[in-house]
Amino acid sequence: MSDHLKKERIGVGIIGLGTVGCGVATILLDHAALIRRRVGIPVEITGIADLDITTDRGISVDKSLLTTDVQALINDPHTDIVVELIGGLQPAKQFVDAALSREKPVVTANKALLAVHGEELYASALRHNIDLGFEASVGGGMPVIRTMREGLAGDQVKAIYGIINGTANYILSKMSEGNVSFQDVVAEAQRAGYAEADPSTDIEGVDSAHKLAILINLGFGTPVDLQDIYTEGVTSITSIDLEAAREFGYTIKLLGIAKWSAGVTASGESEIEARVHPTMIRDESPLASVNGVFNAIHLVGEFVGDMMVYGQGAGSLPTATAVVGDIIEIARNIRVNAGGRVPPCSFRPEFREPVRIKPMAEVRCAYYLRFSVQDTPGVLSQLAGILAEHDISIASVLQRGREQGGRVPLVVITHEAMEKNIQTALKTIHGNLSDLPMLIRIES
Amino acid sequence: MSDHLKKERIGVGIIGLGTVGCGVATILLDHAALIRRRVGIPVEITGIADLDITTDRGISVDKSLLTTDVQALINDPHTDIVVELIGGLQPAKQFVDAALSREKPVVTANKALLAVHGEELYASALRHNIDLGFEASVGGGMPVIRTMREGLAGDQVKAIYGIINGTANYILSKMSEGNVSFQDVVAEAQRAGYAEADPSTDIEGVDSAHKLAILINLGFGTPVDLQDIYTEGVTSITSIDLEAAREFGYTIKLLGIAKWSAGVTASGESEIEARVHPTMIRDESPLASVNGVFNAIHLVGEFVGDMMVYGQGAGSLPTATAVVGDIIEIARNIRVNAGGRVPPCSFRPEFREPVRIKPMAEVRCAYYLRFSVQDTPGVLSQLAGILAEHDISIASVLQRGREQGGRVPLVVITHEAMEKNIQTALKTIHGNLSDLPMLIRIES
Repeated sequence: MSDHLKKERIGVGIIGLGTVGCGVATILLDHAALIRRRVGIPVEITGIADLDITTDRGISVDKSLLTTDVQALINDPHTDIVVELIGGLQPAKQFVDAALSREKPVVTANKALLAVHGEELYASALRHNIDLGFEASVGGGMPVIRTMREGLAGDQVKAIYGIINGTANYILSKMSEGNVSFQDVVAEAQRAGYAEADPSTDIEGVDSAHKLAILINLGFGTPVDLQDIYTEGVTSITSIDLEAAREFGYTIKLLGIAKWSAGVTASGESEIEARVHPTMIRDESPLASVNGVFNAIHLVGEFVGDMMVYGQGAGSLPTATAVVGDIIEIARNIRVNAGGRVPPCSFRPEFREPVRIKPMAEVRCAYYLRFSVQDTPGVLSQLAGILAEHDISIASVLQRGREQGGRVPLVVITHEAMEKNIQTALKTIHGNLSDLPMLIRIES
Repeated sequence: MSDHLKKERIGVGIIGLGTVGCGVATILLDHAALIRRRVGIPVEITGIADLDITTDRGISVDKSLLTTDVQALINDPHTDIVVELIGGLQPAKQFVDAALSREKPVVTANKALLAVHGEELYASALRHNIDLGFEASVGGGMPVIRTMREGLAGDQVKAIYGIINGTANYILSKMSEGNVSFQDVVAEAQRAGYAEADPSTDIEGVDSAHKLAILINLGFGTPVDLQDIYTEGVTSITSIDLEAAREFGYTIKLLGIAKWSAGVTASGESEIEARVHPTMIRDESPLASVNGVFNAIHLVGEFVGDMMVYGQGAGSLPTATAVVGDIIEIARNIRVNAGGRVPPCSFRPEFREPVRIKPMAEVRCAYYLRFSVQDTPGVLSQLAGILAEHDISIASVLQRGREQGGRVPLVVITHEAMEKNIQTALKTIHGNLSDLPMLIRIES
């Protein structure tokens, strides 16, 4: 037996006393007996660091645990695990680096940090042979990281479709329920605490892109630059589109989509599609009924087929549950394993295969196109002609009613076409026949 | 560094070359490079044992790996991990015991074995300080075991609702789609390979009860006797009930249901509700849209709230994916950890808290009741009177049309009531007013 088997307690240093930090402290305190039972020895908080340690957060932590000195907390010999919950790039990265370089395992919920610096941090954890837990970075309490890292370890993930931003999903769900405008729903979501004062990161798709980058790295074993993920938010979606989608049997969701195709390029490289945008999915799709602030991730594995995990993607306690799950796993590893575990080997840089990120222009899918055209004879025929010239064939057309000023809304669903052809055709149509067309991609 | 870090390969001995066994062999062979990358060293098949090694299974395994001598395969010094895939109680238990007593970690997909002998096997694995992987025993490729064991390690599971039998779900889904009889759908499912020649274990709810027993042990940290799980199958469900359910906004699913209430008995014990039966759930419930052979498990955690995992609950490759996930996790543990890992501490017998299994008679829920009554004045009033006498209040009534022989179908949805009151009331009504009533429990 090694010395570590004689360890009497595991100390956890928490950086950040915000929503998730308070949740983690609450669970570690309230479920101390349960956690002790699952780890075998007590898991105790050695300190909680925050710039502001005077505001009452409504949790009962021993005041002596609060500190503003992060470095001292990391260096404390009783701190075995460092939990980073301040979010953002800096100083979060500095703290995580400090912990890793002192060979202390880290648990983080910081998706921006991992999306931008993940590769460096995974390599650092590997070099020091210590754990880096990040289950809480995607999908709150939903066990997607563990599922991909362990459950599907023997499978090859082929595709990822994720509703990974609760704010955007709440907004689209509310808009689908009734004839309410985007602005009104955002204001309501802000009042309900489901949207931040500045909701742009959520509604512009940036937060979803961060999470998709993490999932791609884990699922496909390759890092992806955030710039290479096509990102479009939900701000231009209107009730008209939600209603038209419904008539065609579709629901509109903000999806993070990633697909992997082995050895398809001319030089035999594999290719990855990576994009975040509003997406029309069939009503029967399991993702279509994921409403409100819930998140869900649909994975397609070569062997396992279709799989989905579903849960609360944000919120203090759901996210904290994921953080505590990581803490417990690492605490067990510390007990039996001298603090280390072989980190997921898919992160080992030497195993990286060269991949190509497919440019958005080359992506193929079906499209929902909504035009506002002059109600004159021959318009539909001209419009269809332009689409045909660009190799776009029409699957369905919906024309009904008339807008103010004699313009007519015209909805076209296309068969699968190439993005660059669609964009070129839309430019021509916009210049000649229609006001600015609305485009929503379809996955079926 | 210990000797184990110098280990050059991990040997896997597979017992059982049926559907899942062939799937496991296929994945280990086809994904050898991927698995080698994830474990760090090769994972190789040391042998595959089956009584019948002459039938062509359509997979390309080196003939020299096939054997009928299970004991020799277990004892082979190159076999590091034993994979039991023959199912049933014996000789499966004998083989698992033999492997554990030789301190070889075991991976099994055998739900009957774990439902009946789980407690003994978990204790044996603990005593020998080795791994026992059983992700594949519930929900095929769906990562529910890992989620409960690790993801929710810091949470207290409060309730489990599972669609955990694909055959029963396929039958109910097909019956919901059109006016087809139970018998016709079973015959169709058998032709499609979704139901066995003798489908009784699936359609009588026995298989679901096995899986629920495993989930209860893991989620609530206590073993439960199979006899204590109230088990009712789907054989009496008719198209009339599916249609009536739809009119009320419900879907009928065969659910395994378990609920945990802390310290509620007179002597302060916790109490567990455990039952398998056809259940009416609201159409908006995430489980309602789980159709065909898919499985899903909805968990409610104290902190994580609602969570669901969804996937193919059976089939060669989905189930094999879960087996291979366990093999990879254990192979990693062997590499870094001298073959052992502290097994989940919730299985440690010394931590068991005494719990009471709530008798079915005391369970409370809402009920769907379908009567066939004589079309005479006053029947509804008499029927409602009998229900009221037994403390059962009516939420909705649906009466429409008339059956042959002047009888009238009458559907009643009750408010929450106690099972024993319902049963007593139904006996009185059956004797006096109605043909044998149909009862379906409602969870909302």
